[in-house]
Amino acid sequence: MPLTVPAWAAPAPGAPLEPTAITRRDIGERDVLIEIAHTGICHTDLHQVRADWGPGIFPMVPGHEITGTVTAAGPGVQRYALGDRVGVGCLVDSCRECSACRAGDEQYCARGHTATYNSRDRYGEPTQGGYSTHIVVDERYVVRIPDALELDRAAPLLCAGVTVHAPLVRRGAGAGTRVAVLGLGGLGHLAVQLAHAMGAEVTVLSRSPHKRDDALRLGAKAFATTSDPSVLGDLAGSFDLLLNTVSAGVDLDACLRLLAVDGTFVGLGVPDGPSAFGFFSLMLGRRSIEGSLFGSVAETQRTLDFCARTGVAAEIETVTADRINEAFDRLARGDVRYRFVIDAGSFSA
Amino acid sequence: MPLTVPAWAAPAPGAPLEPTAITRRDIGERDVLIEIAHTGICHTDLHQVRADWGPGIFPMVPGHEITGTVTAAGPGVQRYALGDRVGVGCLVDSCRECSACRAGDEQYCARGHTATYNSRDRYGEPTQGGYSTHIVVDERYVVRIPDALELDRAAPLLCAGVTVHAPLVRRGAGAGTRVAVLGLGGLGHLAVQLAHAMGAEVTVLSRSPHKRDDALRLGAKAFATTSDPSVLGDLAGSFDLLLNTVSAGVDLDACLRLLAVDGTFVGLGVPDGPSAFGFFSLMLGRRSIEGSLFGSVAETQRTLDFCARTGVAAEIETVTADRINEAFDRLARGDVRYRFVIDAGSFSA
Repeated sequence: MPLTVPAWAAPAPGAPLEPTAITRRDIGERDVLIEIAHTGICHTDLHQVRADWGPGIFPMVPGHEITGTVTAAGPGVQRYALGDRVGVGCLVDSCRECSACRAGDEQYCARGHTATYNSRDRYGEPTQGGYSTHIVVDERYVVRIPDALELDRAAPLLCAGVTVHAPLVRRGAGAGTRVAVLGLGGLGHLAVQLAHAMGAEVTVLSRSPHKRDDALRLGAKAFATTSDPSVLGDLAGSFDLLLNTVSAGVDLDACLRLLAVDGTFVGLGVPDGPSAFGFFSLMLGRRSIEGSLFGSVAETQRTLDFCARTGVAAEIETVTADRINEAFDRLARGDVRYRFVIDAGSFSA
Repeated sequence: MPLTVPAWAAPAPGAPLEPTAITRRDIGERDVLIEIAHTGICHTDLHQVRADWGPGIFPMVPGHEITGTVTAAGPGVQRYALGDRVGVGCLVDSCRECSACRAGDEQYCARGHTATYNSRDRYGEPTQGGYSTHIVVDERYVVRIPDALELDRAAPLLCAGVTVHAPLVRRGAGAGTRVAVLGLGGLGHLAVQLAHAMGAEVTVLSRSPHKRDDALRLGAKAFATTSDPSVLGDLAGSFDLLLNTVSAGVDLDACLRLLAVDGTFVGLGVPDGPSAFGFFSLMLGRRSIEGSLFGSVAETQRTLDFCARTGVAAEIETVTADRINEAFDRLARGDVRYRFVIDAGSFSA
């Protein structure tokens, strides 16, 4: 029998979120019912409720940084048992047949992955995210939260964490690698910790000089203010890898000049409108620009396991449901250190 | 004693080339004197004599696709003997001390490599290129032309050849790799042959439907006309590697959509002005844009050796010195299949 549960939804594009009730699907053969403990507020949630990237499906319940506990399971569930601590990230299904899905890259599913919200599931029904008390998800799209991680501070690892960890792993960040992190926000503060934990030498590039202390505390070896052009000139050719976590447009040519030979600029923030650069900025150092989209389920699990081993977790400010709209406004201004996490208990309050 | 030799030079930016005489430096400890047999006409030569990329040093003798024979050698020369068939590509010196030089990537020398022409050597003198009868070059920047290659058809391998071969090698082109070559000109016609010889499946993308037969003859398995948007739509997600050999601006987003997951767009042509793209075009397939600048001396030797083993060479039209300006005009219109090569004997005629 479908389960009706409390949630907070944006009723229309750009409208404030408000309490509502939604129906979760029947628990299928390999589905688990998760009682949500915490849900992170991701910058993507802001874009989606404003329909910045397309029309969107409304009413919309955002949230794709979900942690909680399994409270029911379908008869075919193999990986999880009642009481297990689990998480759900940015996707809840994919075709499972295309070459990307078979390769374990289901975020790049040729038929389009099913996003955790603002998407349609294989039955044509809109998906609704983690700003709610419960969610039903096929176990193949669920990850395990290691015991060493707290459910609140782990929540942002499900999107922000894997988004920065996956390219660090793929590009071989480690001892001897010079990593620049552009922007010290939700993604950036995890990127600094993760790259440092992997043994890389980390430099934070930020507009805000007052973030220096945090950057160093999180593991950065150096900090540079991007608003000072001479600083960027001094750093020319200094980095093997630059993770851009800033959503606002950046001076791409200036960033590319920061890279050493064979250096890579990884774009993780999505600026409005096109980005421009001169090809010489790439050619004069055999540099690359790469785009990367969160991570697969397996990569998400690897991120969580790595964080459990190394003690990395998000720095969070916990809010209750009635403060979501205020948190959205503060997030839009960059006023959070470094991730809002909603206490899901407050959805049923 | 310095050697005065015939050459053709552009006396000023944009002026037609005309006969002149230039002085080559004394043969130093590890220098070889090369009697030039053939010099390819590269699209870069057009840009440089027009000062498209900067002020330029005039009078300018272009030419960086040089083949010939060693006719004198300094006392410290170890690698080459009189009579050896040799080549000189895009660079003739570098600092030899920076990390790029030590890694064998001297084209990315931190102090700037010394280009074969329109550059200044370590003594501050302007370098002059291969539109001449002789050139003096340090043997460390000279490559050997394998016996299996003719000096005329080998000349374009010194720039065009290595420029396309190096990224194919670096990106692992081979059996099972789907390579698209955008543009069938001097670089493109070598890229098709090389990628095919490496075992990759090659598709040529060209504005000109009449190049289909040549594309297939050179080794392409398929041909598509870029002027037809529906053709590009059908090819979405089809390639692991796209080599862009076109200097004119391209629709970067449309090209990126042709790439499969983890696919790479390699920019080899340099469009005027900035290039623009949307980051989602990269992110939705973990794709990259890479820029690559010809190749190192070692890569150039590898290209020549590979061509000798596999029978790849440029398709050329040989011209005499008095037809250089006509060849420039025809090259600017794309009217050559596929590379002009100057018979250097005609410089002294």
